[in-house]
Amino acid sequence: VTVYLVGAGPGDPQLLTLRAARLLAHADVVVHDALVSPAILELARPDAEMIDVGKRAGRSSTQPLINALLVELGHTHACVVRLKGGDPLVFGRGGEESVALTDAGIDHEIIPGISSAFAAPAAAGIPVTHRGISGAVTVITGHRQPGEADIDWHALARVGGTIVVLMGVERRASIAEALMSGGLPADTPVAAIERATTSTQSVVRTTLAILGAQHIATPAVLIIGAVAALNLTAPELHSLVTQ
Amino acid sequence: VTVYLVGAGPGDPQLLTLRAARLLAHADVVVHDALVSPAILELARPDAEMIDVGKRAGRSSTQPLINALLVELGHTHACVVRLKGGDPLVFGRGGEESVALTDAGIDHEIIPGISSAFAAPAAAGIPVTHRGISGAVTVITGHRQPGEADIDWHALARVGGTIVVLMGVERRASIAEALMSGGLPADTPVAAIERATTSTQSVVRTTLAILGAQHIATPAVLIIGAVAALNLTAPELHSLVTQ
Repeated sequence: VTVYLVGAGPGDPQLLTLRAARLLAHADVVVHDALVSPAILELARPDAEMIDVGKRAGRSSTQPLINALLVELGHTHACVVRLKGGDPLVFGRGGEESVALTDAGIDHEIIPGISSAFAAPAAAGIPVTHRGISGAVTVITGHRQPGEADIDWHALARVGGTIVVLMGVERRASIAEALMSGGLPADTPVAAIERATTSTQSVVRTTLAILGAQHIATPAVLIIGAVAALNLTAPELHSLVTQ
Repeated sequence: VTVYLVGAGPGDPQLLTLRAARLLAHADVVVHDALVSPAILELARPDAEMIDVGKRAGRSSTQPLINALLVELGHTHACVVRLKGGDPLVFGRGGEESVALTDAGIDHEIIPGISSAFAAPAAAGIPVTHRGISGAVTVITGHRQPGEADIDWHALARVGGTIVVLMGVERRASIAEALMSGGLPADTPVAAIERATTSTQSVVRTTLAILGAQHIATPAVLIIGAVAALNLTAPELHSLVTQ
């Protein structure tokens, strides 16, 4: 194996996997997103080549350039780590990079990381599932690709569980509108976890009705549903979860 | 902090977080599920007390006993690790244990782990999201608590993304039936990943129509949707994912 597509987790270096830390310490070259925190990049081998593709990674037009870069590096280096925030296959486009590498005949492996979809709510004391409150969790992204079919918001509103939106800050007003028109009550709790699991994490608690007007700083993970009103670490919010 | 509710990840010890490995090496006592692999338990301090609550953990009636045990240990030990397969808050009942600890005034912390919901498909080469194929992923459990409201299967069938079912092997026939009656085609791909990320992992590829009749060994994670036909590690299945 010469290329590893590695999940870096939600931000806290302590939430890297053992495997990810070992690969980082070993790699000749590290290709990383802007979302990967400096404290994690410091775990790379001191003489490793570090390539930041983050500035461009947000735009779909440059994904082919990243794919091409990985193929090139895979031909010229012994150990390449492609480090991605969260998990490579949960809205991380790791599948596309894997396809490009396979098509080029480059042996590679995908190493999962802790997705912000689950770690961000946990860091805010929010259980995405909780007996009697939520028995399902759906993860979506607010960042649709051009030409891509939108999800069925009416159906999503009716599933009856927790909704986690990654990269949804910009579109939060229209997402809230779509879910309310699908049947979710205007007072459905929403929590926005900004810079989750980092030392500057901040949590905004609101409702669907006022989500669009609320100031929320990117990057943030949105949690929508009854669990978003909970905080396991705050006794005053506990009455809601006590059996 | 005296009690840590720690996610052990999907099975492979290399997929533990750095934080989990350090806490395991430090704890006086480790309270673990049956789902946590022996290779992970070996990372505990050699003289740590190991308590297996796994045999009983599957039955909801014993969760209060586990809660009471954690409270008792929190009062008598300096560092207690409650080690749970996957992530404590993704169908892990960590929220209930957290509530019990807070009510008893015991300082504790929740450490996320990699959920099998995402790691199992990754280990089978299946991206739960993939551009142009799946833009949403819903995680549910097949193991409903008595008296708990069922999810809206018709709505779930219509959301239009990947469905991941944890602990769903026993109920697989009725789950397939509910999703087909909700509108999912009978030929919708299904993958069952048995003993995910362990050395004895095995993947069964099938469809909704024949899922109920298929032999599947527990524990297994079910992946339902177009992505379940993919295998990023197998070139012959690549035409499906090439742009």
